[in-house]
Amino acid sequence: MPLHDGGEHELIERYFRHLGAVRTDVVLGIGDDAALLRAGADMELAQTTDSLVADVHFHAGAPARSLGHRALAVNLSDLAAMGAAPAWALLSLTMPAVDEGWLTEFAAGFGLLARRHEVALVGGNLSRGPLNITVQLTGMVPSGTALRRSGARAGDHVWVSGTLGDAAAGRACSADASGPAGELERGALRARFEYPTPRVALGAALRGVASSCLDLSDGLLADLPRLAGASGCGAVVETDRLPLSPALRAIAPGAAWQYALRGGEDYELCFTAAPGQAARLQQIAADLELPLGRCGELRAAAGLELRAGGSVIQFSQSGFDHFKD
Amino acid sequence: MPLHDGGEHELIERYFRHLGAVRTDVVLGIGDDAALLRAGADMELAQTTDSLVADVHFHAGAPARSLGHRALAVNLSDLAAMGAAPAWALLSLTMPAVDEGWLTEFAAGFGLLARRHEVALVGGNLSRGPLNITVQLTGMVPSGTALRRSGARAGDHVWVSGTLGDAAAGRACSADASGPAGELERGALRARFEYPTPRVALGAALRGVASSCLDLSDGLLADLPRLAGASGCGAVVETDRLPLSPALRAIAPGAAWQYALRGGEDYELCFTAAPGQAARLQQIAADLELPLGRCGELRAAAGLELRAGGSVIQFSQSGFDHFKD
Repeated sequence: MPLHDGGEHELIERYFRHLGAVRTDVVLGIGDDAALLRAGADMELAQTTDSLVADVHFHAGAPARSLGHRALAVNLSDLAAMGAAPAWALLSLTMPAVDEGWLTEFAAGFGLLARRHEVALVGGNLSRGPLNITVQLTGMVPSGTALRRSGARAGDHVWVSGTLGDAAAGRACSADASGPAGELERGALRARFEYPTPRVALGAALRGVASSCLDLSDGLLADLPRLAGASGCGAVVETDRLPLSPALRAIAPGAAWQYALRGGEDYELCFTAAPGQAARLQQIAADLELPLGRCGELRAAAGLELRAGGSVIQFSQSGFDHFKD
Repeated sequence: MPLHDGGEHELIERYFRHLGAVRTDVVLGIGDDAALLRAGADMELAQTTDSLVADVHFHAGAPARSLGHRALAVNLSDLAAMGAAPAWALLSLTMPAVDEGWLTEFAAGFGLLARRHEVALVGGNLSRGPLNITVQLTGMVPSGTALRRSGARAGDHVWVSGTLGDAAAGRACSADASGPAGELERGALRARFEYPTPRVALGAALRGVASSCLDLSDGLLADLPRLAGASGCGAVVETDRLPLSPALRAIAPGAAWQYALRGGEDYELCFTAAPGQAARLQQIAADLELPLGRCGELRAAAGLELRAGGSVIQFSQSGFDHFKD
């Protein structure tokens, strides 16, 4: 973590040095060549990174506060999918020029979410160049208990948290210049896109309960086959059971289930569990005040089958591919 | 570490999944939402990140193999400066389009250096966008033994490894279309720029010997004041003692010491040690077959004083600032 002189060093001091949570396991934070950290005894580290790139993951006018939030949220979501507790973040921020208003907003969005999840910002770097936000996040999980994509069996139920499709609809609303009709609902959907909620507490609660887990970043149609496939299974989804928000139903009454199937960036968890875990899952949902919905099951036959109103719909796999879209 | 479908997933499989070293402390590598890693007992983690951005840190025509090498080397150098042993890397690569020839070369440069230092590549992501290479690296150091920028005292000697100024001269040579005069030397200097050698073994050997340490990324004039300042000291440098390579002396006979003072990207270590450690340092130099040169000392008075041939030269602080250059 080179803190170059002048501009970069001052900016890091001003905006980032004291931004995250204070943690006792940070031996040495921002300001040296590397951070020094202490892992807990009997813990495995969970480590992930993700980038937000201008004009690919967001548009030029996207609010900086939302970008700060999302850059961390997508990584928190990855750790949630492992059942890991987040701990330490690094931030690599490349931007065309120093815009202090932008930095203030970006830091506010990042910092609020970091502190909410007790994440310390322990290093990073600033460079000049086209806007690119890369966060790396390390967390901890008791050894041997991490949730994985693999490990499920045919007959396990497929569950999702929260509601699906809101973020994709919210993204469409952001670009849409429609009038005030449904303004409240549009605002709710936009918030789901701009400020997704990583399901960190849920991930931790699912350790020992879920048989496999991932987070929904590319949409159920793209992500569920990965989950099922990692366990050598296929899956059936009952589209009537997809959890849809009132806002999505109101704004896109005809297309809601398409958003739920194909829309990405919800950052809900999709997981499997043996049928006998249903009661326990409902207890977790009640404890966390977060709906958990069963929307399908794994089966031995490969592929993803969609059912609606009792009939089978042929699916065409879709999803967000950074190189093809 | 979302492995998006289609393009990204296949590219990661093809170029990156098996690129780094195989380590027994990697519980789960590339392919899930996060990697799972096991820290050693009684070890602290050292964590750093650095980015290479097109048109800022390198020019469009820079060889991809060199970029792969440098992207990892600059992070290895940060860990070397802490005395930490590198272990696990994450790679975030944003590129305008898939160029398989470029990826092959990039992976070759990254992979060779990773395996040389027993670094496993445990995650990452590929995005479309302007070329940006961000690596995060985690290593380990026995608890309480890490080298820091701070902790030195007035009277400690200032040492540097290897030779200084070669990379900056090599960078200039890369841009220079001169004829065959000094071709051998130019090639040697270019190699120092394109394939810097992180001083990982030296960093480890300096634990318990050096009183403070950093790596020279921005040039001695920019970096030494940071090192001295972190200990509340100033420094004196005897420019006659700056270690210069024969190639640099041959190519830039008049400007060699300016390169050595102001040139960045050498990734040599600059460290301080009590005068009584000189013999031990010479033994380390012999063991590692790496010259270590004493070129100054810390003093209580703030600031950096340059001396040449016994007289004091006023310095003007300089260095590489991503936002000002």
